[in-house]
Order: sequence, then C-alpha cells, then structure tokens
Amino acid sequence: MEQGKKTAPIGVFDSGVGGLTVVREIARQLPNENIVYFGDTARVPYGSKSKDTIIRFSEQIIRFLQGKNVKAIVIACNTASALALETVRDEFDVPILGVVIPGARAAVAATQNGEIGVVGTDATVKSGVYTRVIQELNPKLHVIEKACPLFVPLVEEGFKEHVVTKQIIEYYLESMKNTQIDAMILGCTHYPLLRSKIRAYLGEKIQIVNPAYETAMDLKQLLSEHDMANDGTTSLVSRYEFYVSDAAEKFVDFANTVMPFDISKANIVNIEEY
Amino acid sequence: MEQGKKTAPIGVFDSGVGGLTVVREIARQLPNENIVYFGDTARVPYGSKSKDTIIRFSEQIIRFLQGKNVKAIVIACNTASALALETVRDEFDVPILGVVIPGARAAVAATQNGEIGVVGTDATVKSGVYTRVIQELNPKLHVIEKACPLFVPLVEEGFKEHVVTKQIIEYYLESMKNTQIDAMILGCTHYPLLRSKIRAYLGEKIQIVNPAYETAMDLKQLLSEHDMANDGTTSLVSRYEFYVSDAAEKFVDFANTVMPFDISKANIVNIEEY
Repeated sequence: MEQGKKTAPIGVFDSGVGGLTVVREIARQLPNENIVYFGDTARVPYGSKSKDTIIRFSEQIIRFLQGKNVKAIVIACNTASALALETVRDEFDVPILGVVIPGARAAVAATQNGEIGVVGTDATVKSGVYTRVIQELNPKLHVIEKACPLFVPLVEEGFKEHVVTKQIIEYYLESMKNTQIDAMILGCTHYPLLRSKIRAYLGEKIQIVNPAYETAMDLKQLLSEHDMANDGTTSLVSRYEFYVSDAAEKFVDFANTVMPFDISKANIVNIEEY
Repeated sequence: MEQGKKTAPIGVFDSGVGGLTVVREIARQLPNENIVYFGDTARVPYGSKSKDTIIRFSEQIIRFLQGKNVKAIVIACNTASALALETVRDEFDVPILGVVIPGARAAVAATQNGEIGVVGTDATVKSGVYTRVIQELNPKLHVIEKACPLFVPLVEEGFKEHVVTKQIIEYYLESMKNTQIDAMILGCTHYPLLRSKIRAYLGEKIQIVNPAYETAMDLKQLLSEHDMANDGTTSLVSRYEFYVSDAAEKFVDFANTVMPFDISKANIVNIEEY
C-alpha cells in the first residue's frame, strides 16, 4: 500500500468524552498511528435514543471523518456499535470496527463457568447485541444484561468520588452480584472511569472486561491485514486531532483528566451539516 | 382579529419532557387553547450545551412550529429561554415568551427579605440571566444561583423516590439552605417534578417558585393584548398535538405520568431538516 495511506489517521468517534478511554488504549498499543477523534457533545447521550437516530448521527460523523481522509474508523461508543455498526459497514467503503465484538470475545475468553454479565446504556441493553454476539461465539454461554443509565451523568458531573455513586453502583449491580457470573463487560465507554468503584463492590471473583483493550488489538490486526499500519518513519510524533459538536473547552478539560498526554484544543464542527 | 388566528394553536417547546409541566399549567389556565408541543428528545439535555448550539436548536424548532401555524410560542425550557430568547425574538415574527422573565417576576413578588435563590442547569446558571432579570426588576435584591446538573437525569431515570435523590438534593442545596433566602426559583422545567422532595429538605420558610404558573399568566395576557385568545366557540374540545425528535413511546409513557389527561401518541420529526 502507498505510504500516504499508511500515514493517514484512524478515525475514532463517540457520543462524547467516553471514547477517550478507547483512544488511550489505541495510543498505548499503536503509538505510531495518527488519530482524528470526534465527540458528539451537542447530542450526547446516545444511550436513551432510538436506532434510527443513532444510525443517522453515525452516518453524519463517518462522512465528516472521511473528509479527514481516515484509513479506518473505530466506533468507540457501545450504543452506536450496537445499533449502527452493521448498517454503516454496508453503506461506507472505509473499514469500520465497533467495540461490541471485541468486548464479547474478551468476555468469552475470560469466563471460566460460562456465566457472563453485561452492563451498558438502555439502548445497548435493549438491543441485546452482547448476548447475541457472545452466543454466536459459544451458544452454551449464559448472559445477564443490566442497564445502568445514571452511570454516564455521574461520570460527566464529576461525582466519581461522591458517596451516592457507591449507592447507585450497589443499586444497579446488586442483582448482578447475586448471580454466578465470573466475568462482566463494561459495555459503555464511560464505565471504565468507574472501574475501581465497581470492582470494590463486586469483589475479586468477577473479572471486569473493558472492551477498549481488545478493540485496539483488533484495530492492530485490521491495519496489518490491509497493510495499512503506520511504520512511523515519516514523522517523529503521532498527531492527534480532536473535534466536538459543542462545548470544546469542557471537552478539553475532561480529556486532560483521561489522557496520558496534554491536549491543548478541540475544534467545533457543525455535525448536522454532514 | 379573524377567527382563524384565534383558533390557531400555541406552540410550546422544550429539550424533552420537562416542558410538559408548563403545558399542564397552560391547559389549566387557558382551557380553550389548542397546543402543539415539541420535545427535542434526540438532543436532550440542553443544560450542558453552548449558547450557539441552543440558539441553532431553537431556530429549527421555531421554524417547525411556524409550519404548524402557531399564533404564539412558549419556550418552556429555562436553558433555551436563558440563551436563545432574545435572538429568536429578533429573528421571527411570531410572539415568543420564555419562562425566565415570568419566573423572575414571581420570585420578586414572593420574597419578603430581598434574598432570592435560583436552581437550574449549568448553562442557565452560567448565563446569570435570572440574576440580571431580577435586578432589572429591583436592583436591591440579592440573588444566589446554583447549578444542579444531576436533577434532570434523576427525574428522567425514574429515581424520584430513591434514597440517593434525597442525598443529591442535600448535596446541591445545603449551601442554599444555609443562606437567608426566603424564595427559590425552580429554574429548570424538570425540577417541579422534584418539588415535594426539595420542599421537604428546605422547609417551610423558603417559598418555592415554579415559573410555569406565571408563564401561563403571561401567555393569557399576551393573547388578550393581541386579541388572539380562543373563545372556544368553534370546537368543544381543545386539541393537543405532541411531536418529538426521538423515542416517541418513552415520551408518551412519561407524558401520561405528568398530564391530567390521556396522551395516546407523539409524532417523530427529523428536526435537523428545519
């Protein structure tokens, strides 16, 4: 493949800031790759919205990312991966990865007793996609899904360390704790930011699965298969660009608490025009 | 004024379901009026978004409502009233009311000691509009504003009766309770749905002001001044139409818990096309 394609960026998108947990993992595993990130902060959250709406939003964002000449796209949002991935893969030429299939695969590898838990947004859980993908991998596995719609606002409003967060975790996960599951997927890109609190409540016998790690591995394999990996010979430093549909300053503040390097700015895009 | 204009509906809009608390009040005070409601459920919440975005969203919704031949528009959302009212009043011919000015006026009437509290979304509080409007009415009054961003998701996720709601109310309003305020504006259309819990925490010495009542009074006066009030002679029953940008069923379920009459359906509108 020509050098120009190899140095082209990876497009990553999410409903807002949560997808930065996936960018963090891609940066770790694929340090030579350039990234263009889009966070749909004008229309966040996606987790309570319908399939048609999530597909329309995803199509607009993919058209925007194609304008940035991305060589591949990662849908870092579980809700969009659950509701839009199949449709947009049929519609667009660029290779597109979601987080659900990698997350499901990681959980299948992690479970010893065949009982897997999944937590996510309303839309992701209602889609039943994690159960379907896990059972396609192994029909004998048993999956329990639970929507936790307050986790996203708790993270976004900085309540991570507040006493009510512990109570809301207990409220949502009590039924999960009382099952036999030995692996649980964090099926929303915000949830890894509550990981230590969730672990503290569930204890050590349940392995917590974050799809971000496995997604970055899948991306690595995809780039290698298509001979698209950036070997890093043309530039010394990877370039990261951040775009949002609203509230760029708030995004930058949040990004700097999540990412291992400084982010100086995010650009505003009127995504409805795409 | 010709009869056709008198029987034309009132347009009411909000970021989602909260504005139904204003519709409820209009229905009570102006029982002969027809109403077209739009809830922007695809892009809710507005409270964390920027002024430019809220203005663009409001313009789209007003264009949609004009297509329904409304004779007047009520912005039932405090955030949109705070950030977009002045701009859209300049841009459109139809008379437009917000909830901030009526709410401020009600609080000015309610206070005995000149100390007023305001709770609202991040965007409403950052705009400082309540303080500005109250002090235009009476420069001697002192205003304390406080953003309570988790109140909206708590209401939307049905946590009204949950123990954490009490704790989050205490967390946000503790500083307010320790002041001398004797009147507090519920500066977000969702908050009246937490009214009894807020009252239980603040006690009887602080009068809670819901702008919905005063807004309906203002609308009554506006219709009378423009000779636009529907005298109810042409139809026996007022007609209410509900439109949303997403998730119509969820909206209908919620609406039926707020409104004093049955709502059978809401229609989906692709608001980005307006």
